[in-house]
Amino acid sequence: MSDPQPLKSTDIISSGVKPTGILHYGNYFGAIRQYIELQDAGEAFYFIVDYHALTMTPPPAELRANTFRIAVDFLALGLDPDKASLFVQSDVPEVTELAWIFSNCLAAGDLERGVSYKDAKQRGQTPNAGLLNYPILQAADILIYRGSVVPVGKDQSQNIEIATRIANRFNHRYSADEPYFVPPRGWILEDVAVVPGLDGQKMSKSYDNTIAIFEEPEVLRKKVMSIPTASTPLAEPMDPDNDHVFGLISLVGDDETVASIRESYLKGGFGFKRAKETLIELLEGYFGEARERRKELMANPEVVRDVMAAGAEKARARATETMRDVRELVGLDWRNA
Amino acid sequence: MSDPQPLKSTDIISSGVKPTGILHYGNYFGAIRQYIELQDAGEAFYFIVDYHALTMTPPPAELRANTFRIAVDFLALGLDPDKASLFVQSDVPEVTELAWIFSNCLAAGDLERGVSYKDAKQRGQTPNAGLLNYPILQAADILIYRGSVVPVGKDQSQNIEIATRIANRFNHRYSADEPYFVPPRGWILEDVAVVPGLDGQKMSKSYDNTIAIFEEPEVLRKKVMSIPTASTPLAEPMDPDNDHVFGLISLVGDDETVASIRESYLKGGFGFKRAKETLIELLEGYFGEARERRKELMANPEVVRDVMAAGAEKARARATETMRDVRELVGLDWRNA
Repeated sequence: MSDPQPLKSTDIISSGVKPTGILHYGNYFGAIRQYIELQDAGEAFYFIVDYHALTMTPPPAELRANTFRIAVDFLALGLDPDKASLFVQSDVPEVTELAWIFSNCLAAGDLERGVSYKDAKQRGQTPNAGLLNYPILQAADILIYRGSVVPVGKDQSQNIEIATRIANRFNHRYSADEPYFVPPRGWILEDVAVVPGLDGQKMSKSYDNTIAIFEEPEVLRKKVMSIPTASTPLAEPMDPDNDHVFGLISLVGDDETVASIRESYLKGGFGFKRAKETLIELLEGYFGEARERRKELMANPEVVRDVMAAGAEKARARATETMRDVRELVGLDWRNA
Repeated sequence: MSDPQPLKSTDIISSGVKPTGILHYGNYFGAIRQYIELQDAGEAFYFIVDYHALTMTPPPAELRANTFRIAVDFLALGLDPDKASLFVQSDVPEVTELAWIFSNCLAAGDLERGVSYKDAKQRGQTPNAGLLNYPILQAADILIYRGSVVPVGKDQSQNIEIATRIANRFNHRYSADEPYFVPPRGWILEDVAVVPGLDGQKMSKSYDNTIAIFEEPEVLRKKVMSIPTASTPLAEPMDPDNDHVFGLISLVGDDETVASIRESYLKGGFGFKRAKETLIELLEGYFGEARERRKELMANPEVVRDVMAAGAEKARARATETMRDVRELVGLDWRNA
């Protein structure tokens, strides 16, 4: 399922990027690729959500490092700062002010029904108030840039619903004549491909079966070589449709290449070792440019910092506009009394 | 019960002032007087909590007007901006950022057990998330100025407990070697006097039996004249200890005056009309200076605005310091990665 309404050039795309650990192919083909492609569809604000990350209470050094690294990775993977503003969420602290204002536009019960919060409770954890409140901060994230479109995975529609509910409540209460916020709509990311992991299950950090996008060459080699395959004798035909190696090949090869490798599989005499060598070559080719860009960015961190600072400046200008309006609408502008 | 530990000169007093409706004698003798006296005990930050007021979703014009008016009233009643910084909460929006960070230092369940939230639910209301979260914002209010002492009514100790819990959790997690926040302690305001209202019940807005501190003279007269009294014949002695008029007299008269009026009561031949006339005179005298100052401030709103701006500047400088430290401690300072 994709978005029912096509994007308009006036749409503002607004989306958070988690400062998680090392990105793997599953992340890339499942979401990041489409994410980055969206930068061509309209004005976009992409922010690395370090405030949200705090709900998981990461060690500060890890949060700092991940925030910076994910920026590098997105830039390396093709995010174009001339098309999309890339910045760190906490560089626009106004978003927390809007979140407070929004917290008065949502019934507390709506938070208690939140998916992440309920999950944590069901797992017997003691969720903190940040986890309870994060849908409000997420609504502020979107609406402070007056975002109209939010790229989301299939399972995240609840948060768009909450943002919509808040926008409507705010409009109803404070700007009934001329609704101030446009309720955002989700742009559902198609799950292009379930990327098979090293063990053939869906690639996921929790299965410990991932290959990082920017894996060191030796590690990449070792990991690919360890993918279990059928015990077909070398001379025999191999079944591409039940092979994890071929699954990965078809993600990163162009159509012609994939067709030719499929033929080799079916003809026999090809062997899984060669298939794996081919996969390694293709992977290296697919992400070769990104890897080069990444190396360069890592060697010039000030370039990354400048890009992020410019993104934050643009975002903050827009956020400041929103907050000036909002403060007036709700009556925080006591100087006008 | 007063504070077990006397105030030290290094104590920072930090307290919110609600931008409520018209202040009455009950407010004054119950809390404001002691509040203002505290300005002599240490550095103080007094802020008008417009963010908190939003939980009750006041009409914007009313919030704006009340915020300004309460500042005028406090200044008129003797708050000295050279001793205590008086400002509007939302002029230091950093407090909402700290509130977000703090929300990750408190179990969500602690909010659900909050007094105001539980009360609202029990009254069958649908409390908004702001009401659920306000103890977190209150903790941020106190700790962003590194307040060590919080004047509170007897029934507000729960919020001090939550601020203490948050400070300890933060320290434990992010600054174990050298605790960053001092858990605040409550300075319990002694309920000096239950001020009798027009009907003899405790003076309270909800009983509609109040006399405003700055009542118009004609209204004041009318209200005092309407206080029910015993039907003692004029020549007979009157019982001062069971008379609301005398109750009010003893609040605002100096010892000598009160003693002499008590005598007149007991002697007889005084009468309630004269008692009421005396009360009006005493009230006018007690708040006469404040009334004059208030008139002057109302005529020069820019003076009030300047005082508030100066207070906000001082408060914001301190808040900015705190936030710089806090951002580093939790790892939002990605530039240092």
